[in-house]
Amino acid sequence: MFDCGEGVQRQIIKAKTGFHKKMKVFITHMHGDHLLGLPGLIQTMALLDRQRRLDVYGPLGVVDFLECIKKTVQFSLTFPIEIHEIEEQGKICEEDGYFVETIRSNHVIHSVAYAFVEKPRPGRFYPNKAKLLDVPEGPLWSKLQKGHQTELPNGRIVKPEDVSGPSRPGRKIVYTGDTRPFRQLTRFARGADLLVHDSTLDDTLTERAEDDGHSTPSQAAKNAKKAKAKRLVLTHISARYDDTSVLLEQAKKTFDNTVVAEDFMKIEIPLPEN
Amino acid sequence: MFDCGEGVQRQIIKAKTGFHKKMKVFITHMHGDHLLGLPGLIQTMALLDRQRRLDVYGPLGVVDFLECIKKTVQFSLTFPIEIHEIEEQGKICEEDGYFVETIRSNHVIHSVAYAFVEKPRPGRFYPNKAKLLDVPEGPLWSKLQKGHQTELPNGRIVKPEDVSGPSRPGRKIVYTGDTRPFRQLTRFARGADLLVHDSTLDDTLTERAEDDGHSTPSQAAKNAKKAKAKRLVLTHISARYDDTSVLLEQAKKTFDNTVVAEDFMKIEIPLPEN
Repeated sequence: MFDCGEGVQRQIIKAKTGFHKKMKVFITHMHGDHLLGLPGLIQTMALLDRQRRLDVYGPLGVVDFLECIKKTVQFSLTFPIEIHEIEEQGKICEEDGYFVETIRSNHVIHSVAYAFVEKPRPGRFYPNKAKLLDVPEGPLWSKLQKGHQTELPNGRIVKPEDVSGPSRPGRKIVYTGDTRPFRQLTRFARGADLLVHDSTLDDTLTERAEDDGHSTPSQAAKNAKKAKAKRLVLTHISARYDDTSVLLEQAKKTFDNTVVAEDFMKIEIPLPEN
Repeated sequence: MFDCGEGVQRQIIKAKTGFHKKMKVFITHMHGDHLLGLPGLIQTMALLDRQRRLDVYGPLGVVDFLECIKKTVQFSLTFPIEIHEIEEQGKICEEDGYFVETIRSNHVIHSVAYAFVEKPRPGRFYPNKAKLLDVPEGPLWSKLQKGHQTELPNGRIVKPEDVSGPSRPGRKIVYTGDTRPFRQLTRFARGADLLVHDSTLDDTLTERAEDDGHSTPSQAAKNAKKAKAKRLVLTHISARYDDTSVLLEQAKKTFDNTVVAEDFMKIEIPLPEN
């Protein structure tokens, strides 16, 4: 979960996501609207007897915040919480299938952006090649498909690349959090399958957006284009816009494959084939 | 506002109550589901440039809570907040038309209940009596109606009781917060026009309710009856009840004028005539 605004637990109930899953929360900055859902989320998890560890990543201050909530709002935990205060840019966590990177962004207080990056998947498996090399169907195929070299009954070694195409990239999702446009984003978001970008105010309010540490649709779209992202999601839209089509139009002039984020929106990101 | 759970600001927007009005918040106890809406509410008020003072009343700990939120979640205030930690039972605030009283309740942590009590209104005004005493219609009538004695142009003093019936009681609303049944409530809620009572679990789970510091519908109804309250609202219903009619039926066996609280429910409480 990237950022955790007030009411998250209610949305999780509506979305039927569940409170017991493996989960990491990544906070971009210490403003209430990105943070104040955390205490209630944790409390509800505890009420529902969650056992799994919860990892929380965020800028300096997130430890103090959770400590003081724990001290003043009395609740007992049923599961461990590990809080990671981010001190440096770069990779902050790595799991089997993915890692998460962070970079400083440019808001009115210290803030970071995040990239969720899937690791490359083994290349496409060619059964015909396996058959030609006399690899017997079954566990050995599966081992090769998962990218491990294997020894045949006759003693010969077969490597994954002997029976598969080149490894295929995973997916990459970048979430800027609240930010003005910043130069380093281009490299950070390079080739992202999805770029979720601050777009608080429309282009006619560019100066106000700059003052408040936010971006406009055109700026978000330019960043998506420069980074060669595949899709753009405009988010953190100001409550002043009952109708967000004005923002969408402004972005689409520069970057067509854009949508405006909505509650409970689902976006399917296909696995790239090369 | 009595208690301030997560998501209050969203509900205020939906209910169109506004963020700029004169307002006092009364917290019953330091559990997150009664408290965690406060930071976001305050932050949104500041964003909307509220100027009026906000008063927050609550048990020991509410100062620490707001202080640590202010320190860790960075926001700047546009209005003063006065936090009142309740140390003793009795009257905790008094305004022109009403006062608020508190009493210790009986939850798993320190907790209080509140009574909102309107002051008596001047008695019904009788124009005929005023005319008989030669009070000229206009400002002097209005002064007498508001309960002030007045001097006629001829020098005679007329008292409100000369031209009005006996003073009429105001309304009384009692909110228990989370609590097991407790003896002192009967006197505290005596004659309440509305008693809003904890009714977390239904009667078949009385033991569990006792363990968790809550009440059942029958217990709430008995309290309403003993206190001679006029109406009862069951609140803090556990999320396990999709259908709350079972709770309502259990309460109605003892106290018929009962409803189950719902989001955005409005209840009109008529001004009593005597």
